Amino acid sequence: MSVNERIILAKRPQGMPDESDFAFEEQPLPVPQAGEVLVRTVYLSVDPYMRGRMSDAKSYAKPYEVGQVIAGGAVGQVMESTDPTYREGDFVTGSWGWQRFAAVSTGTLRKVNPDLAPVSTALGVLGMTGLTAYFGLLDIGQPQAGETVVVSGGAGAVGMIVGQIAKIKGARVVGIAGSDEKTTYLTEELGFDAAINYRTDDLKAALVEACPEGVDVYFDNVGGDVSDQVLRLINKNARIPICGQIALYNLEKPDTGPRIQSLLLTNTALMKGFLVGDYASRYNEGLHELAEWLRDGKIKHAENVIDGFDKTLEAFLGLFTGENLGKQLVKVSEEQK
Amino acid sequence: MSVNERIILAKRPQGMPDESDFAFEEQPLPVPQAGEVLVRTVYLSVDPYMRGRMSDAKSYAKPYEVGQVIAGGAVGQVMESTDPTYREGDFVTGSWGWQRFAAVSTGTLRKVNPDLAPVSTALGVLGMTGLTAYFGLLDIGQPQAGETVVVSGGAGAVGMIVGQIAKIKGARVVGIAGSDEKTTYLTEELGFDAAINYRTDDLKAALVEACPEGVDVYFDNVGGDVSDQVLRLINKNARIPICGQIALYNLEKPDTGPRIQSLLLTNTALMKGFLVGDYASRYNEGLHELAEWLRDGKIKHAENVIDGFDKTLEAFLGLFTGENLGKQLVKVSEEQK
Repeated sequence: MSVNERIILAKRPQGMPDESDFAFEEQPLPVPQAGEVLVRTVYLSVDPYMRGRMSDAKSYAKPYEVGQVIAGGAVGQVMESTDPTYREGDFVTGSWGWQRFAAVSTGTLRKVNPDLAPVSTALGVLGMTGLTAYFGLLDIGQPQAGETVVVSGGAGAVGMIVGQIAKIKGARVVGIAGSDEKTTYLTEELGFDAAINYRTDDLKAALVEACPEGVDVYFDNVGGDVSDQVLRLINKNARIPICGQIALYNLEKPDTGPRIQSLLLTNTALMKGFLVGDYASRYNEGLHELAEWLRDGKIKHAENVIDGFDKTLEAFLGLFTGENLGKQLVKVSEEQK
Repeated sequence: MSVNERIILAKRPQGMPDESDFAFEEQPLPVPQAGEVLVRTVYLSVDPYMRGRMSDAKSYAKPYEVGQVIAGGAVGQVMESTDPTYREGDFVTGSWGWQRFAAVSTGTLRKVNPDLAPVSTALGVLGMTGLTAYFGLLDIGQPQAGETVVVSGGAGAVGMIVGQIAKIKGARVVGIAGSDEKTTYLTEELGFDAAINYRTDDLKAALVEACPEGVDVYFDNVGGDVSDQVLRLINKNARIPICGQIALYNLEKPDTGPRIQSLLLTNTALMKGFLVGDYASRYNEGLHELAEWLRDGKIKHAENVIDGFDKTLEAFLGLFTGENLGKQLVKVSEEQK
């Protein structure tokens, strides 16, 4: 317990990342300074957006530095505290990233109540993932009862929550995902009205069939050809929150396709890129409502937990091969009562 | 004076329209029915959006029917009235289109005050053109003082007004147009901060030079390659009203280019297609403010008037070869005092 282990960016990936882009390194256990706590990581999060931060291209988040630890969402327990408002054993969430231990300023932490829901939900439905779905769908997408909402990456962490919130709002919900296991999960377990496997179905025909009244909201997590097909079906005054473009993150060539401006014009449609951080002042509102829905069973949270810090890269790389169903987490240590 | 002359759609154009797509036809002078007035056309408007209505593809406006008169904005004088609120000699504007005379329901007309401004402005800055610029820029674009606004089709009817309103709001304004005559007009006469001739300038380099702090609002009238270049320079939280896509209206092949969703995402930018009709409930607000700006000399109205109903097709087709500077009108008859 006197050694920390962490994963750093060894070099910037070209195209699809692989394990050689990262390095595990050992360091002495950090010592918390004034205003900091020492945390032991219980769960860490791997997310598609992290791929963007591994490049140095202009993007919405600051690029990771080569040689530095990969920052990202994590849940842990306080081991030592210099701040009287945090006690040993408290569960906290923050963005200290891919390391077993960290000394973290308490100003960047939020406490997690283990009696309310499993602490891992702080990285999922009751964390950035849930808030991303909540604000993107409700603030930009604004689904109305009876409208049709299509969500790409429907079986991903954000997509699953988007679809469930859209159902709560009375919309017809169509998910697009990459395997029959996923599409079955969406319709059988999460109550989506239809789900389409873009890898095997004739996407165009399947979309037309699943959306007989067109598409009012398209929550886009993936981009690329899938989006081209959905956008051809948008209705007058459609809303299109752009949450992610996972199909493109590892492209090495410029991404080209049909220009979409004419579709937006003729349908007087709105498309908006967003980041959950744009809504930081409203997080409490979102978390409150998400927690109610979770408690009332209106939202199920699906997690895919890989056990062991040494499996972190495998979990991350699996995001791009479409293996995960729901939120992908790595369990790093046991919760201590 | 007992014969009307009008222009009908003879067949649907393929690609760029030509004169063979239209026909002039003579008809007896129409007789106004109850609730109608007989108007004599003084000015008629030719606009790029009309090209869209000549196709039968799904679009924002109903397609013209083959064999029917081309509908569009016009200003005229009442010759005979069955409605006591309209008197002989009154100036009116409506959308009776490309014909010398029309019997028009007064419910579709708006009176024009010839003492306020030249009556032709009812088709330009004090009509749909001005309102399109006003609502697209202010409602979607929302330019703030010190921001950079780029407008494509900058020397077109809408573009000129967009740029001038953006100047009123304190923005840096960059126009893109298709000739040196036009760019000179924009900077010398209308006070644009910079103007770029996309036909001769190195567009990318010229945009970078003209927008040293990036692009906060891109008011898009043209689409295509020009837009691709502008979008590469958008700033965080950019707003992009899509007003027209004139570069595409006559394309026969699908329009392809770089996909833009990643740019919208990484800049959390908003793109929205709009139609002036979306703002019908606010026309009075817009006309009132535009009239004040016109009266105070803050907006100049530039018209390009071709004389003679028989020149209507020439005027319309010239829109697509970039010949017009400002609003393109056809003068059909003299104003009678």
